Amino acid sequence: MAEQISSDARKASNVIKTLSNDKRTAALKVVHDLLRDNRDPIIAANKLDLDAAKEAGLPDSLIKRLDLTKGDKYDAMLQGILDVAALPDPLGKIQLAKHLDDGLDLYRLSCPLGVLLVIFEARPEVIANISALAIKSGNAAILKGGKESKNTFAAMADAVQRALGKTDIPSLAIQLVSSREEVGDLLKQDENIDLVVPRGSNELVRNIKNSTKIPVLGHADGICSVYIHETADPKMAARIVVDGKTNYPAACNAVETVLFDTKALDTCLVPVVKALKEAGVAVRASGAIKKALLEKSGEAGVADATDEDFYTEFLSLELAAKTVDSVQEAIDHINTHGSHHTDVIVTSTESAAEKFLKGVDSAGVYWNASSRFADGFRYGFGTEVGVSTNRIHARGPVGLEGLTTYQYQIRGHGQIAGDYLGAGGSRAFKHEEFDPSA
Amino acid sequence: MAEQISSDARKASNVIKTLSNDKRTAALKVVHDLLRDNRDPIIAANKLDLDAAKEAGLPDSLIKRLDLTKGDKYDAMLQGILDVAALPDPLGKIQLAKHLDDGLDLYRLSCPLGVLLVIFEARPEVIANISALAIKSGNAAILKGGKESKNTFAAMADAVQRALGKTDIPSLAIQLVSSREEVGDLLKQDENIDLVVPRGSNELVRNIKNSTKIPVLGHADGICSVYIHETADPKMAARIVVDGKTNYPAACNAVETVLFDTKALDTCLVPVVKALKEAGVAVRASGAIKKALLEKSGEAGVADATDEDFYTEFLSLELAAKTVDSVQEAIDHINTHGSHHTDVIVTSTESAAEKFLKGVDSAGVYWNASSRFADGFRYGFGTEVGVSTNRIHARGPVGLEGLTTYQYQIRGHGQIAGDYLGAGGSRAFKHEEFDPSA
Repeated sequence: MAEQISSDARKASNVIKTLSNDKRTAALKVVHDLLRDNRDPIIAANKLDLDAAKEAGLPDSLIKRLDLTKGDKYDAMLQGILDVAALPDPLGKIQLAKHLDDGLDLYRLSCPLGVLLVIFEARPEVIANISALAIKSGNAAILKGGKESKNTFAAMADAVQRALGKTDIPSLAIQLVSSREEVGDLLKQDENIDLVVPRGSNELVRNIKNSTKIPVLGHADGICSVYIHETADPKMAARIVVDGKTNYPAACNAVETVLFDTKALDTCLVPVVKALKEAGVAVRASGAIKKALLEKSGEAGVADATDEDFYTEFLSLELAAKTVDSVQEAIDHINTHGSHHTDVIVTSTESAAEKFLKGVDSAGVYWNASSRFADGFRYGFGTEVGVSTNRIHARGPVGLEGLTTYQYQIRGHGQIAGDYLGAGGSRAFKHEEFDPSA
Repeated sequence: MAEQISSDARKASNVIKTLSNDKRTAALKVVHDLLRDNRDPIIAANKLDLDAAKEAGLPDSLIKRLDLTKGDKYDAMLQGILDVAALPDPLGKIQLAKHLDDGLDLYRLSCPLGVLLVIFEARPEVIANISALAIKSGNAAILKGGKESKNTFAAMADAVQRALGKTDIPSLAIQLVSSREEVGDLLKQDENIDLVVPRGSNELVRNIKNSTKIPVLGHADGICSVYIHETADPKMAARIVVDGKTNYPAACNAVETVLFDTKALDTCLVPVVKALKEAGVAVRASGAIKKALLEKSGEAGVADATDEDFYTEFLSLELAAKTVDSVQEAIDHINTHGSHHTDVIVTSTESAAEKFLKGVDSAGVYWNASSRFADGFRYGFGTEVGVSTNRIHARGPVGLEGLTTYQYQIRGHGQIAGDYLGAGGSRAFKHEEFDPSA
């Protein structure tokens, strides 16, 4: 079954990859229109899921995520499809153009990855978003949603497939998978699935990463740190830490650890801790921090930080704080305790900043800015497929580009290698880069 | 043991990644000088390996690969280090620069991957080449060579480590591993090893790909095809097929399959088969090809092609030939039978070429040129780390760039997300790309 699904997806991918941006964009318009015109049956299916969820006593937060009638969720979903359709074509971008010789040109062009497996939890609107991203980027996608929204998914997937039937895109380019067992089998189809995109909890991502050889785009943890250097401006440090912790505590780019340089304790410790307290954040402090707080502000009621706290993604209004003696010690702490997501230095000293930016082994390294900027929309990517803490393929916030790879083209006039130096001949290569738009 | 080795490598990688190109390049000069000055002890160690190999009755081809005194192998190895040292710095290249807002700039810069595990067979000179590539690209490397050259490896690794001791590069940046058991354990260290680079037989690559979750840079097979279209020039078709098959039959970019369009049989079949025959190539032909050959040239003694032949990398002066009825059928054959390496169309019709280039799902897609051009040196990359048939990370011939990833930097002045639209504030992002060199 999983083999059939993934091999069908591969076949569809070999068609959709050849379609022009105009055709892919027009197809998205058809998908949009059909989802718009089928709002009633989809909302009716959604009501079945909601009723079942309420009956099963599922938590309110989950029911909210399930509910497609909540606020402008449905309209925002429809608009999202048009937004993706309007993005520039991610395919066929010339990344390199080189005359190997007269009439023998090498190009490197962006092209689709092939087949995506997207696994997500309860939010049914994800199906529209992912379908749009996959089609725009010329990929086929296999979608597996959470069982809590199975009726909504089925109704939406049906609409998407009917829509594709009216376009040049093979309808098997988007396939919905419903049973949990199939996921395990799909994760074994590394011949025909090129990338797994999990959309959900850290737990979900971790489980998937541990059970497949297919590359996984995502992050299991977001343990971001702010290092407050000796020359940090105290107000700036407090603002960056408070924003990083409180702007959206459950986000992967939220701050979990604050490292105070021992030489910054005099200027920054009290203002930063005071600002955190005012923002409702509980600080877990190392012994050195507790001692300094007591000395400098008479503050005594701070909780102890355990070693484990510095490996913890709190996802709540808590953070851990400790001292370090140098920029290098901050770098070493982050590289061993962090999750290679996004880390910040606050300093007025350029050399300290440069050392930190070069030394920290994370997808994002920031100087005097909040870790919360680590986001595809804030980076101006138009959309966000995920945030990756992998080193391979895509790193950090990932836009549509993360669903592409590249291909080399050679356009020649019958040249053979044997005529050239190194393969038996005497001709030399020219290797001149040129501007393909000229 | 494997855990210690890889964690030591990670520590060394966190140092070497911060060193300037000048320091990395200077270190390569020191490595070069020490290998030059220690030629005698290294050649003496090499003699031990050669004697043991002869005593064990190992094949001549293997003994040739082992022998560092063969031709100018040693000098070429030394020169190779200087060549890598002279390459442009692959690190710190600005791939994107964007004003997110006034005084809030986003950069995407190339940086090292981290830790490489390089597994190779008998050629001892690889140790110098790989050490040079790793150091130049700011990566740490763990090297595992074949047991047949263990004495040579030990002598060379010792020289490399002594050389690094005289530089800013931690000597654990290059570690040699000798026992076969350790490889299995190292392949499990996906926390601290970022890329596996196998240098050796298809068998070696396949085994490694099947036994690790770490990304593997390489290709298990190279099944390259030439599709001869109706409007192909017969002489050009013959030259491209013969060069692709005979220039270096054991290469991964050699031709294994020829697809004749049925409409090209009249013009191209006889000249191509004749040229192959003259070049000593044995053709295994489908029924349709055999029939056409008999009709057109009276040729009857051609072997039958089995279905298996079209999934076979012959690596010798043999190839399989069959007919297809259209460009689409050629594309479908290649996408299902090939190895996504490099495939060629010979045609005078632009629309056929464009369809083929877009539809074939391979790292290299060529129009009227030999598949043998698929090579890092021929592409002008200065060096070749490998040829990848992966879709993820690096595809096709891979130069130093394949040992790098990227990192996002933000340089701000205390900005926080909460001041911006979408996170509670009212400021809009500017998202203006700029030229960082201006």
